[in-house]
Amino acid sequence: MPKNAPAITELKSLLGNRLSTAESVLNLHGENEAYFDVMPPDAVAFPNNTSEVSEIMKICHAHGCPVVPWGIGTSLEGHALPIRGGVTIDMINMKKVLDIADEDLYAVVQPGITREELNTELRATGLFFPVDPGANASIGGMSATSASGTTTVKYGKMSDNVMALEVVLADGRIIRTGSRAKKSSAGYDLTRLFVGSEGTLGIITEITLKLHGQPEAISAAVCEFPDTASAVNSVIMAVQMGLPMARMEYVDPISIKALNAYSKLTMTETHHLFMEFHGTEATVAETAERMKDITTTMGGGGFQYATKAEDRTKLWHARHNAYFAMKAQKPGADGISTDVCVPISKLAQAMDDTIADVESNGWQAPIVGHVGDGNYHVLFLFDRDNKDDLDLAKSLTSRMNMRALELGGTVTGEHGIGIGKMKYLKAEHGEAVNLMADMKTALDPTGIMNPGKIVSLN
Amino acid sequence: MPKNAPAITELKSLLGNRLSTAESVLNLHGENEAYFDVMPPDAVAFPNNTSEVSEIMKICHAHGCPVVPWGIGTSLEGHALPIRGGVTIDMINMKKVLDIADEDLYAVVQPGITREELNTELRATGLFFPVDPGANASIGGMSATSASGTTTVKYGKMSDNVMALEVVLADGRIIRTGSRAKKSSAGYDLTRLFVGSEGTLGIITEITLKLHGQPEAISAAVCEFPDTASAVNSVIMAVQMGLPMARMEYVDPISIKALNAYSKLTMTETHHLFMEFHGTEATVAETAERMKDITTTMGGGGFQYATKAEDRTKLWHARHNAYFAMKAQKPGADGISTDVCVPISKLAQAMDDTIADVESNGWQAPIVGHVGDGNYHVLFLFDRDNKDDLDLAKSLTSRMNMRALELGGTVTGEHGIGIGKMKYLKAEHGEAVNLMADMKTALDPTGIMNPGKIVSLN
Repeated sequence: MPKNAPAITELKSLLGNRLSTAESVLNLHGENEAYFDVMPPDAVAFPNNTSEVSEIMKICHAHGCPVVPWGIGTSLEGHALPIRGGVTIDMINMKKVLDIADEDLYAVVQPGITREELNTELRATGLFFPVDPGANASIGGMSATSASGTTTVKYGKMSDNVMALEVVLADGRIIRTGSRAKKSSAGYDLTRLFVGSEGTLGIITEITLKLHGQPEAISAAVCEFPDTASAVNSVIMAVQMGLPMARMEYVDPISIKALNAYSKLTMTETHHLFMEFHGTEATVAETAERMKDITTTMGGGGFQYATKAEDRTKLWHARHNAYFAMKAQKPGADGISTDVCVPISKLAQAMDDTIADVESNGWQAPIVGHVGDGNYHVLFLFDRDNKDDLDLAKSLTSRMNMRALELGGTVTGEHGIGIGKMKYLKAEHGEAVNLMADMKTALDPTGIMNPGKIVSLN
Repeated sequence: MPKNAPAITELKSLLGNRLSTAESVLNLHGENEAYFDVMPPDAVAFPNNTSEVSEIMKICHAHGCPVVPWGIGTSLEGHALPIRGGVTIDMINMKKVLDIADEDLYAVVQPGITREELNTELRATGLFFPVDPGANASIGGMSATSASGTTTVKYGKMSDNVMALEVVLADGRIIRTGSRAKKSSAGYDLTRLFVGSEGTLGIITEITLKLHGQPEAISAAVCEFPDTASAVNSVIMAVQMGLPMARMEYVDPISIKALNAYSKLTMTETHHLFMEFHGTEATVAETAERMKDITTTMGGGGFQYATKAEDRTKLWHARHNAYFAMKAQKPGADGISTDVCVPISKLAQAMDDTIADVESNGWQAPIVGHVGDGNYHVLFLFDRDNKDDLDLAKSLTSRMNMRALELGGTVTGEHGIGIGKMKYLKAEHGEAVNLMADMKTALDPTGIMNPGKIVSLN
């Protein structure tokens, strides 16, 4: 009898047809957005509520059956791959908005709702949830991986925007962390322990999120630069001056070429900043004016300011399609989309050294960056059947990670560790990784929570 | 032989005259800003560097000797009281600024430096460190208690402003958390685990702090209100509109009376908001104008706008002296200064119910609040020799805490748990407190790190 069969039998009697072992369902939950092979779980559970998640965990705990929580599958480092088999818990039936507090600026949601679905529900309130990693990820997944994105420079990352959680622990206990107050000093910050824990410490079943008022005015701008340094220096100055920038995205010449082709644009194939300003009419206009001065001083040119919604939408739509635009440049190729984050003063150097490394290997790789945070992404496109290509992509990724560490940065600004970056986590945090392992052991002594991710105990 | 004598003998040979058992030194480190009795430690160590802290911990770990880290002693819930005896580690010799990165907006400091000392060192850079709990606390202590204060509504709390830590663990191991990048998804968020852990998980020996650019323009305003609700409603609207408020302080009529007497002011003895705006000349003026409109709509009056530095300073100096002004109203009295935090929409109700409770017991108690965060403070002044007074103060505090929980809030927004609020932590977090205990056990298995605080294991 397969190892996890007794657990699956019990789960079947708990959930009926909401426990699936159909091959197509298993395969769907064994896929990933990265380059890892498909690894289907033994079964997929579709709980309807927290109490069922708790019952599932009690059964899996009793049988030592591994459990992997699943949002919508957009993670990039293999976070949700059931590498030790077991049961994947798909949160698709838990996507309610439980509360919207428009005076207190928070919403309480279930983990399966996506950020776009949440913002659709919020539209009439004048509020919005700003964290935007690009993909239409689930809020549970975004919490579990500590996602961030294009708006983080103004609105913060997930850990800044999650106020409270309900979590089901490995043994089925249900706990609540945080509160609905804007701040608290009451004991250890369990909320931020679970945010970014990638399902290895517990399953997030409810999230209280900060909301923000829709800005009175939004405008966008785009500017060209002769090199990375002049673009980055513009951003450094804007940050130092405390300008209220909502987005500041660096886009490299290779990406611009891809965007032109994919989105039928005619931008100059050089370094660009895509910017967005949120505020009152007056502050938005003032900020754009100052940003124009700054970029000119730093050697930029062709500053274009878009106040009309359709022009803005076109710009950001193009930016959001960057991943697909780049993949379209090499049809059929697989991609490693990897990110690191460094102090901003080191960002131009980090990007330039990475480009030089790629080019010296006879390759090209597009770079985009949430440059206000010092965070940049490289997409290595390769042919899966060509082992040399994959090896080169991996070694370029490895050097990019180590370079970020040498510059005082981190091996991932927002993608997380999953299985793809475990060795780099050790390089970054050394002895502290042993502390993470101690915490994992304390919270999940039998090691059933998304085993083999972040820290490997068995 | 006293229980901790072997550890103290070894520490003496490590530190020489930087290990003190002089009565005056012990008593100084047994005092507290709350109402708890003096409890001197067995010895006080004055390490010069991280390596010495590590050696101290190895010795104390080997002998099971309790250790209490000490910044400057301004905490309000008995956090630094050596209730199980042992050694207090005073960080006064570790107050260097190790690095100021003016392009990347961070500073690396040792824990003993105070926030005012740090800001003095930063003055020439055009940068500042904004977190302001009122007292001139040490940065190590502010990190350990997750402090916040008057500027948190704009600049965040300590956990938003600590980027990285060096920590000495219970067994003397030295770890580094976080990085110098602005964000990271690399593993569990150990930084925010230690921020707010009140010395119970490790000793913070180095802190990397976010800095902010000194605002181009600062102005202040003050406004009168007929009741708490009209003041709070003004704040709710300002927050909803996303106005860039740097401080929004509620001050009640009793406090105004005390401030008038103490600081020789002539404010009307009614409810007030003290406000500060940071930004460009244009945004500051625009914000003040909008705030004037809002407060008028909500029933406020007497809006006064102060752009001159000396007027601003006078206002905030008065606010910062509130604690002393109130104590001066009852010379010789002791005080319980307690804080809770609730969703802002519940703040007026929470404050009004607390005032009604105090008055129905024939007492008066001043209230001030960081109202933009939903955080308020009450000072119960009592005669220490009058047991009935102390009992009443404690029961009023207890009901204030439980009221905050009923309203979806927390039993402390910024003071922390220490020994004063452990029973309320259990009321707030229930089963999650057991998880905190598991984490404490994992990181400090012999229970020597500031034992008996936050969670009690032995």
